[in-house]
Amino acid sequence: MESEQLFHRGYYRNSYNSITSASSDEELLDGAGVIMDFQTSEDDNLLDGDTAVGTHYTMTNGGSINSSTHLLDLLDEPIPGVGTYDDFHTIDWVREKCKDRERHRRINSKKKESAWEMTKSLYDAWSGWLVVTLTGLASGALAGLIDIAADWMTDLKEGICLSALWYNHEQCCWGSNETTFEERDKCPQWKTWAELIIGQAEGPGSYIMNYIMYIFWALSFAFLAVSLVKVFAPYACGSGIPEIKTILSGFIIRGYLGKWTLMIKTITLVLAVASGLSLGKEGPLVHVACCCGNIFSYLFPKYSTNEAKKREVLSAASAAGVSVAFGAPIGGVLFSLEEVSYYFPLKTLWRSFFAALVAAFVLRNDMNASKIVDDIPDRPAGIGVYSAIWQLCLALIFKIIMTVFTFGIKVPSGLFIPSMAIGAIAGRIVGIAVEQLAYYHHDWFIFKEWCEVGADCITPGLYAMVGAAACLGGVTRMTVSLVVIVFELTGGLEYIVPLMAAVMTSKWVGDAFGREGIYEAHIRLNGYPFLDAKEEFTHTTLAADVMRPRRNDPPLAVLTQDNMTVDDIENMINETSYNGFPVIMSKESQRLVGFALRRDLTIAIESARKKQEGIVGSSRVCFAQHTPSLPAESPRPLKLRSILDMSPFTVTDHTPMEIVVDIFRKLGLRQCLVTHNGRLLGIITKKDILRHMAQTANQDPASIMFN
Amino acid sequence: MESEQLFHRGYYRNSYNSITSASSDEELLDGAGVIMDFQTSEDDNLLDGDTAVGTHYTMTNGGSINSSTHLLDLLDEPIPGVGTYDDFHTIDWVREKCKDRERHRRINSKKKESAWEMTKSLYDAWSGWLVVTLTGLASGALAGLIDIAADWMTDLKEGICLSALWYNHEQCCWGSNETTFEERDKCPQWKTWAELIIGQAEGPGSYIMNYIMYIFWALSFAFLAVSLVKVFAPYACGSGIPEIKTILSGFIIRGYLGKWTLMIKTITLVLAVASGLSLGKEGPLVHVACCCGNIFSYLFPKYSTNEAKKREVLSAASAAGVSVAFGAPIGGVLFSLEEVSYYFPLKTLWRSFFAALVAAFVLRNDMNASKIVDDIPDRPAGIGVYSAIWQLCLALIFKIIMTVFTFGIKVPSGLFIPSMAIGAIAGRIVGIAVEQLAYYHHDWFIFKEWCEVGADCITPGLYAMVGAAACLGGVTRMTVSLVVIVFELTGGLEYIVPLMAAVMTSKWVGDAFGREGIYEAHIRLNGYPFLDAKEEFTHTTLAADVMRPRRNDPPLAVLTQDNMTVDDIENMINETSYNGFPVIMSKESQRLVGFALRRDLTIAIESARKKQEGIVGSSRVCFAQHTPSLPAESPRPLKLRSILDMSPFTVTDHTPMEIVVDIFRKLGLRQCLVTHNGRLLGIITKKDILRHMAQTANQDPASIMFN
Repeated sequence: MESEQLFHRGYYRNSYNSITSASSDEELLDGAGVIMDFQTSEDDNLLDGDTAVGTHYTMTNGGSINSSTHLLDLLDEPIPGVGTYDDFHTIDWVREKCKDRERHRRINSKKKESAWEMTKSLYDAWSGWLVVTLTGLASGALAGLIDIAADWMTDLKEGICLSALWYNHEQCCWGSNETTFEERDKCPQWKTWAELIIGQAEGPGSYIMNYIMYIFWALSFAFLAVSLVKVFAPYACGSGIPEIKTILSGFIIRGYLGKWTLMIKTITLVLAVASGLSLGKEGPLVHVACCCGNIFSYLFPKYSTNEAKKREVLSAASAAGVSVAFGAPIGGVLFSLEEVSYYFPLKTLWRSFFAALVAAFVLRNDMNASKIVDDIPDRPAGIGVYSAIWQLCLALIFKIIMTVFTFGIKVPSGLFIPSMAIGAIAGRIVGIAVEQLAYYHHDWFIFKEWCEVGADCITPGLYAMVGAAACLGGVTRMTVSLVVIVFELTGGLEYIVPLMAAVMTSKWVGDAFGREGIYEAHIRLNGYPFLDAKEEFTHTTLAADVMRPRRNDPPLAVLTQDNMTVDDIENMINETSYNGFPVIMSKESQRLVGFALRRDLTIAIESARKKQEGIVGSSRVCFAQHTPSLPAESPRPLKLRSILDMSPFTVTDHTPMEIVVDIFRKLGLRQCLVTHNGRLLGIITKKDILRHMAQTANQDPASIMFN
Repeated sequence: MESEQLFHRGYYRNSYNSITSASSDEELLDGAGVIMDFQTSEDDNLLDGDTAVGTHYTMTNGGSINSSTHLLDLLDEPIPGVGTYDDFHTIDWVREKCKDRERHRRINSKKKESAWEMTKSLYDAWSGWLVVTLTGLASGALAGLIDIAADWMTDLKEGICLSALWYNHEQCCWGSNETTFEERDKCPQWKTWAELIIGQAEGPGSYIMNYIMYIFWALSFAFLAVSLVKVFAPYACGSGIPEIKTILSGFIIRGYLGKWTLMIKTITLVLAVASGLSLGKEGPLVHVACCCGNIFSYLFPKYSTNEAKKREVLSAASAAGVSVAFGAPIGGVLFSLEEVSYYFPLKTLWRSFFAALVAAFVLRNDMNASKIVDDIPDRPAGIGVYSAIWQLCLALIFKIIMTVFTFGIKVPSGLFIPSMAIGAIAGRIVGIAVEQLAYYHHDWFIFKEWCEVGADCITPGLYAMVGAAACLGGVTRMTVSLVVIVFELTGGLEYIVPLMAAVMTSKWVGDAFGREGIYEAHIRLNGYPFLDAKEEFTHTTLAADVMRPRRNDPPLAVLTQDNMTVDDIENMINETSYNGFPVIMSKESQRLVGFALRRDLTIAIESARKKQEGIVGSSRVCFAQHTPSLPAESPRPLKLRSILDMSPFTVTDHTPMEIVVDIFRKLGLRQCLVTHNGRLLGIITKKDILRHMAQTANQDPASIMFN
């Protein structure tokens, strides 16, 4: 609670001054002053004079803001560690955003003091664009690197370029002018393994030799990839998109976007692709880009110290990832918006847009921008077409099986390309079938208009494209972003409406079997605490039904604002495992004062015992504004108001759960207190909500693992 | 408060039963039962047995939901009018969404009763897709109609097709085979006004005649448009996008999207375009589409009775509008997302996507999909080019002046095409300049790579395209949606990166002069209560500084839950102009019970005086669960718990305003109560926040006109 803390320390300063000075002094009667008045006045009068004056002045004098922040930075540093999170915990978005705004105000208020401060504030203002630029650059560069390396290693399975070992097959034969266009891939510089090992280019021997070497390389690549992942970075496996979704929704998984993961993922991705497994590099590229974003965000205090701001960078990074994966910058932005991001303000939209732009610049992707042109008139299927259809059907079956199994292997593996391939094969089969129909029955009313004999009215290639989009749509349930990606891939502007129709249909069909896409399914399987914005919560339960404590639970663990000792609190911390404790005025009134986090309490008490004189187990802990009068011999009290969240979120016990869920989703809360007529009743955490949702969906509530 | 109402009546029923029956009966111990227990128990015990039992049962028995809703629909109808809004008022999103979910539950619970109920529930489930389909169809049809009519009337200024009066010039001359391709627009069927009136096709006389007629028609069209708007539908003027933004943000402007506006806007739009004023029909088409959406939503109770749901349809409609305006379905979706929509869940994204798709289907727009092809090598500027440049400069100046003035006229007028035209002219000028540079200095390092003599390295047309995007971007501050729109307009896939760069730059330059785009500026000028998500609120003020009452204000007008009479309440309503009143337990405790809306109070008291026996001025009004014991002769008390919002939003006086603003934005609140340690202190309304923001931005707080 850095912000809160500085803020409330700010009060002391203000309040003391405003007590000791003439109340006509504008500067001291700013917003902060007001609160202190409320703090002290326990009478029920709705409006006492001071308040009004204070309010009045804040409303009228612009100077008050600067002055208050000016006071703030005279204060000593906050207790280190307060306001950070443990691993596998959920962040509190509101708190993080407050922290950031407080930091921003501090910098702004200093701005005018010196040229150095001015530079710092400018640096701070531009760091957002800077970090996304760096992320874009890095993602683009890495994507290019991976492409080149994967090409080279793929060719390595067949042979090697003697003249220059670092050339792939194509580059190797560029130079050679001895070859005709037809056999441009045969050139003296390029040696197959058979030529190198048994010295013969033709014949069954060479064929078998090449085959063996091919298998050998493929297996060794795959093995190497698997073992590297297993040994060095388990987080590097899979596409990583489900985890990124979860992280963006406010969950903390340390090291998931770290430099080790980045390094191993990059290497193993190349190996996995080169080994010829049925996987794509597109999904993992998003993970790689997010790693870049995370690593660069550590260069900027604005982002390294704030989990919420860091997630803005990650959203932009995922956009850059898709941008380089498909050469589809706009598609990338929309992917980040529709699929992965949780909190996506317009500012993030622009940043993502920019990151995708930079990344696309770096990786000068030629976008396979080949419009589907086929002017060959429809003709009867010859023997070639029949065999083609059989091969396509076989390919479809094998591809499906291979993909299903590959996705389970613990290597970096994306789903985009395989599922698009499956869809494309199916689409092509349909396309050919329709072409034959059109040829033989060109008088049917559906064909009549375009398909006279010898005309070209059916384009099987278009069916393939639409099929690819539809299949991927069914897997991921993407809509707009998917259409734009395919659109940017193929450049087929006139096909956008069929594409949209296909994607929409596949989404409907998919939703009929189950609402969640593959990423949501993975999140559920892994039991991550992810509050999905897609599924609607429709039950008549109220906050009172979901809140803790339940029946037979011990009563809610609460702190009172001024009559507990350090020992009492430490005992409560040791006996319970809760992440935070409500602070109330007194057991009798049950009136809520604020909320203190377990972690902050522990850290604060530790540092107090170390640094402050006379803090012992029996010293009174005081969260209130003013220390209660203590007997003379009693030890020095410990003031912990600075770590108290004095604006905890509360709902009444009557609030329907659907509203509570809405609040948690939209504000990104971690917990929320439940009151009845101003009295504290209980608490609802994000985990309680997820458990409750699992229960109402007849799933095992224990499947929600983290908190 | 339909939902709340049914809900709480539900309790009575439950509570009575659960009192009179064995508590082992599952059906009666559902969520609703719990609340009643809390209501009655005023002790401070955090958890009494019944509660736990109730909670327990709700958690375990799925049947409880059905049973409770089953009970609900046995109840008499809600008081008509309760839960609706006045004109120029802001809606409460949370309340609306609750209402909708309650309705949804009611329908679902009935579903299994009969085939008819089943059909109704299916109809309800699909009505969302149905209404967007209808909207898409209508928007597409209207757009087509407007195109055709505008074409015909534009040609009417020059002459008329004698053979068929309803043909425009082009259609008129299609039939004629007597004309060569060069003079295909000259055909005997087409008569200029000179030919018709003074009977001569050539010569100065005919020239002057045609000119006069042209002016005559143009003026009469413009005059007719202006007078139609002025007389019949003042709301039909302008582009309508600022108002649609405001409406989508939760403001109510009755008739703005009504059938009259639709009719007049369609007609006057045709007239305005045909008159040749410097305006586009794209913006107004969005308004037209939204009118369609609004009108169709009245066919479906799900949308006609719920302001929040209606806005989902409007978001989709605006997407359809842009889709038909530019033939850019994806661009339309993104426009709705980035520019106009306020609350845009994924479901709305899909609906918008579908609406845009349908609309694009209907209006088979050929999308000007002409890739910029120019293989003419760069050459020195001849006399033609020089004159062209001068003409372009003149055109630029005039276009700017014309556009500025036209946008002020009270006719349907869009900004898209004019500003794109301005940008395109400027871009073309730059393009030609660069081409000359490249020709004369093809050895400069920037040109060296591509521009040897006789090569074609500069494409002025591309500069025009980029210029158009940049200019429109500067005016509206759109980013992603704009790029996609231009992209879909031109199909220039390879130009997407330059486009993005241009749009991003123009946004930065624009933001340097002022953060708000033209639509935000208009909203501010009109003083609409619009909480813009783009601008960040960064001030140190707290809830306590913004809340009412202020200094010298009368104390907060509150109701007590059980010791006020009908007269007291009616007096308070008459004396004050507030839209709602907090209900507290007692003046002493100041503990908050709920919130009652002025409108609901008035309606409820009126209907009670009419319908209920023995309700007089002196009868006690009771918001509490149980009526206090009254003396025997006292009149019958009036129970108003049913109109009480028992889950009002509260924040503590310490909450920083930035959080409060966030809550208002994200949850779409209308008001929020401020408490301190469980005591009610004051209230913050959306208007208070807007006033406060205006003040901090040194604007006149009185400029916020509505509430």
